[in-house]
Amino acid sequence: MKKYKIAIVGATGAVGREMLRCIFQFNFPFESIKLLASARSAGKIIEFENKKFTVEELTEDSFKGIDVAFWSAGGSISEKYVPFAVKAGCINIDNTSHFRMDPNVPLVVPEVNGEALRNHKGIIANPNCTTIQMVSALNRLNEYFDIERIIVSTYQAVSGAGVAGMEELYRQSQEVLEGKEPVAKTLPCASDKKHFPIAFNCIPQVDKFDLDNHFSKEEMKMVNETKKIFNKDIKVNATCVRVPVLRGHSESVYIETKKPIDIDKVFELLNNSTGVELYDDLENQIYPMANLFVGDELVHVGRVRKDLDNPNGLSLWVVADQLMKGAAYNSVDIGLKMIEMGLI
Amino acid sequence: MKKYKIAIVGATGAVGREMLRCIFQFNFPFESIKLLASARSAGKIIEFENKKFTVEELTEDSFKGIDVAFWSAGGSISEKYVPFAVKAGCINIDNTSHFRMDPNVPLVVPEVNGEALRNHKGIIANPNCTTIQMVSALNRLNEYFDIERIIVSTYQAVSGAGVAGMEELYRQSQEVLEGKEPVAKTLPCASDKKHFPIAFNCIPQVDKFDLDNHFSKEEMKMVNETKKIFNKDIKVNATCVRVPVLRGHSESVYIETKKPIDIDKVFELLNNSTGVELYDDLENQIYPMANLFVGDELVHVGRVRKDLDNPNGLSLWVVADQLMKGAAYNSVDIGLKMIEMGLI
Repeated sequence: MKKYKIAIVGATGAVGREMLRCIFQFNFPFESIKLLASARSAGKIIEFENKKFTVEELTEDSFKGIDVAFWSAGGSISEKYVPFAVKAGCINIDNTSHFRMDPNVPLVVPEVNGEALRNHKGIIANPNCTTIQMVSALNRLNEYFDIERIIVSTYQAVSGAGVAGMEELYRQSQEVLEGKEPVAKTLPCASDKKHFPIAFNCIPQVDKFDLDNHFSKEEMKMVNETKKIFNKDIKVNATCVRVPVLRGHSESVYIETKKPIDIDKVFELLNNSTGVELYDDLENQIYPMANLFVGDELVHVGRVRKDLDNPNGLSLWVVADQLMKGAAYNSVDIGLKMIEMGLI
Repeated sequence: MKKYKIAIVGATGAVGREMLRCIFQFNFPFESIKLLASARSAGKIIEFENKKFTVEELTEDSFKGIDVAFWSAGGSISEKYVPFAVKAGCINIDNTSHFRMDPNVPLVVPEVNGEALRNHKGIIANPNCTTIQMVSALNRLNEYFDIERIIVSTYQAVSGAGVAGMEELYRQSQEVLEGKEPVAKTLPCASDKKHFPIAFNCIPQVDKFDLDNHFSKEEMKMVNETKKIFNKDIKVNATCVRVPVLRGHSESVYIETKKPIDIDKVFELLNNSTGVELYDDLENQIYPMANLFVGDELVHVGRVRKDLDNPNGLSLWVVADQLMKGAAYNSVDIGLKMIEMGLI
């Protein structure tokens, strides 16, 4: 089997570290791994599986001889440096939002629309974490029942805001327990004007708002990316909320389908969906929860039930570790799928 | 103005204490206040506004001469003792679920369906906390746009599980911060078989499940109570989730209306809804959050926006202190409304 020279851009971040772990855990066939980051992190040593990796500075020339690069260093970094990597002949799997809606860039969840990979022109976009777990859970249901609309409310962990988000939740929790005022510096959105405590609170803002339509960018990602991945004009209404959970996004998903819901068929489809674990046994209080699946690559689905007032309505509760299925694992899985399809 | 002899049943609980506070804060005209609880709490002294109250044991004879009793000691206590209070001529405002769906008992949110109070036969039921804040927020929108269906996902504070729920969240948070395994004893539901940590987690179970339809009792309360309060066959689909928040429920509410949504009219109606505060200015990141409104009696509404794919769809984010508007304040407000209507 061919082995590849790979690079991870943004290797010191929360997702970059998981990318390195996924490459080992899911046996991505590598000959070498180059870890790239900003000049500030260059020279840092990252140890993994008894190997030492020295972080190098990302430059325009970093991609000579690299076969595949995984990107998670922010949209502006991808915007600036991916074109150099493409020119160098490297295939780029980008976890930032920058290329996602570009009509020339496939936006891929392998088990949902892996075939779209055939149209790649050197760049493949990894969807937003909230979108990935939702479309993965709904894929077989969409094929069979033809989903016409989705109404989703999210319960998103602070790790979506990186290491700083996790540190903020820990610190604020300690402050509240000590009877102090929690200090907010990062959440809901580092680049927005105001910050609010997330400890013992829910913040109905993830990313900045579009002041024209009053949806947040995160909500619009779910709307637009779902249409692109399912390749149909599906109606999507999203409300994205940050909750005081460290890692793992939960989603309350309601779908309305063209065909009436047959609940036995729903369970059969979910039991046979690639990448999905049906975790639903109410008599034994079995349903997915964020704290059960840290570091796990699957999408977990429970609380599956028919709408009592609508024969075409179905509710589901969908949980995944967004750093894994929502980012690092899906990116690495795109690479594995491309090898399987003979595209790299 | 007439002054009333009142009683609070369940006076030592989280809601009972707020009832006492609301009676003072909202000037309920009382001549005397009798605090009732189980034999275990009898003799306890509760101090409030420089007055000392001695808790008495609840018995069948507790209601002689009492004009109005506020109940929040659990459904089985209301079931057993309310009939004795009715016989004694006392008017009973019951915060438990026991009488809510009884066709002979008005289920009331004063600003929504206060007129239903005229049909009372000695008992008035206070709706479930999650229902109250939702129907209060939606009332004027329903009058004008005619709501046909509601899809709601909740973010419920642990105080819904009483003082034990709050203590559990505090203790578990400390355990996690110290690197220990959090111990779960109460949540998601004290009377169910298994308990799960709520600290840094979301639990998609509030109350026990109906194994026939796979909805939880809490979800079915929202479904059935909303139909009764709005007095129409409105479609309601609810997903109820416990989150690591101490006090204050948040709700992601999606409505579909018969009349198309006119967003300016929506804002005008919400700005003129009794008991509702419109808290929505995205440019300045103003939206309701649970931690802003502890001890506050209003229902706060923000993130109001039209569905981009459906001219008859609207999203809202609704936050209230469920011990206040969701329980104690709404109960006391029912009493005040009955005085105003000449019913007591």
